[in-house]
Amino acid sequence: MEGYKTFLILLVSSLLLGLILITFAFVWIFVYAEGLGWDGSNPEFNWHPLLMITGFIFIEGIAIIVYRLPWTWKCSKQFMKFIHASLHLIALVLVAVALVAVFEYHDAKTIPNMYSLHSWVGLTVVILFALQVVVSMIVYLIPITPISIRAALMPVHVYSGLLLFGGVIATALMGITEKLIFSLKSPSYSSLPPPAIFVNTLGLLIVVFGGLVFWIATRPAWKRPPEGINKSSPEGAEVGAASEYSNTEKSDMELNSETARKRNLNLDEAGQRSTM
Amino acid sequence: MEGYKTFLILLVSSLLLGLILITFAFVWIFVYAEGLGWDGSNPEFNWHPLLMITGFIFIEGIAIIVYRLPWTWKCSKQFMKFIHASLHLIALVLVAVALVAVFEYHDAKTIPNMYSLHSWVGLTVVILFALQVVVSMIVYLIPITPISIRAALMPVHVYSGLLLFGGVIATALMGITEKLIFSLKSPSYSSLPPPAIFVNTLGLLIVVFGGLVFWIATRPAWKRPPEGINKSSPEGAEVGAASEYSNTEKSDMELNSETARKRNLNLDEAGQRSTM
Repeated sequence: MEGYKTFLILLVSSLLLGLILITFAFVWIFVYAEGLGWDGSNPEFNWHPLLMITGFIFIEGIAIIVYRLPWTWKCSKQFMKFIHASLHLIALVLVAVALVAVFEYHDAKTIPNMYSLHSWVGLTVVILFALQVVVSMIVYLIPITPISIRAALMPVHVYSGLLLFGGVIATALMGITEKLIFSLKSPSYSSLPPPAIFVNTLGLLIVVFGGLVFWIATRPAWKRPPEGINKSSPEGAEVGAASEYSNTEKSDMELNSETARKRNLNLDEAGQRSTM
Repeated sequence: MEGYKTFLILLVSSLLLGLILITFAFVWIFVYAEGLGWDGSNPEFNWHPLLMITGFIFIEGIAIIVYRLPWTWKCSKQFMKFIHASLHLIALVLVAVALVAVFEYHDAKTIPNMYSLHSWVGLTVVILFALQVVVSMIVYLIPITPISIRAALMPVHVYSGLLLFGGVIATALMGITEKLIFSLKSPSYSSLPPPAIFVNTLGLLIVVFGGLVFWIATRPAWKRPPEGINKSSPEGAEVGAASEYSNTEKSDMELNSETARKRNLNLDEAGQRSTM
């Protein structure tokens, strides 16, 4: 794998940063807010940021880059698909609980639901995310969809996943903004008391985490090599290019083409196939 | 160009949507706020969303996809670089005026500066954006940087540009959230009066505009073909692959390599070089 050391540094950084995000959420809740509970009061609301940061940012970020881990390349693609899908499902469950928490809290406090831009963008992202998970499981996990349709949909799958992850981050930043304005009254948010500095920092770290995930996910050299590659066999190379596992449009367009075969042969000759 | 019709539909949609965003900003300011002015009061603040949406979202979005317009492929790359850089500079000037407007407004109203997450993320994005513009002009416009360095930096240039654009959109959404909470008092934001619905809709449209720009900018088939391609000449193909214009890491890695030469030859044979 090209740039293995850089990959490792960025991977460890993003994992550490993800754990720091969750730690920040806990400190925010237990030091600056009223802890956790499930009684319709503030502690119930606090599950909302905690589960969103844990599920929709950390676990979802890991789900996006899980194919990039080189030590998983020995595992079958089908197994890694299950891991990828399972991480998304775990995220979806945590997101659902996080939504229940905030709706119940609003109802208990007679705060209207769904008026803010945070809620409009957030609910749109959750619905599209759930749709993405369901459609992707039907298309990529159940072996009934023709490989040509899988390949044709892959650029949309990758784009939607990354766009939704960006939407999650933007929504989190709006949520933090709202919560600090509403919860910090004396001293107010504008006087920048310790919780304001602390949670603003959490917001910045969320952006950095997102930036790391986007970088790792979009480096062509760090992609999982297609399955079925056999350097001594042109057919092996063709199977690789024809699989739905390659997530660039270019590979999809070249599906089964003579061009793809020739190109993969050349790349195999140069020993570079595994970097694509 | 492959998928020319789809490209055209998405391009026209994004241009129309961009103009709708600016129209929404004007309606917000002149129907629901107090218009424009430069006297330290609300009308001075209103320049902030108007210029940010016009400069940092619409013009910046167009700057990102300007190389994709197929009718500009007849123009020299150097000319298009000037267009790309000029659009960024125009955006930067509008952003600077937008910042002056909000700082002067805060000072006149004795509202503290730089306490909100919107301001933290926003100022970080503006500083990094200015840095990106200056560094990129030195590296890509002034013909002193070796072509290998230009190529090596291109993935970072592309990634930073897209990440900063995403940062701009997230910051705009936080700004809208803040402004609606602070400005809508009776009736309040939470009762969802017409300006709340209108500006929330503006926020959603900003997200859709960003999604369109990201899709157009990341389709490999819609990239400007490298200069110097001559189908009858392998050297021509090599010059193309070796140029800094190709903004994928893969092309950068293949710089001057025998693999790149062979691959480009094959792609030229299939008449597919221009889709890369």
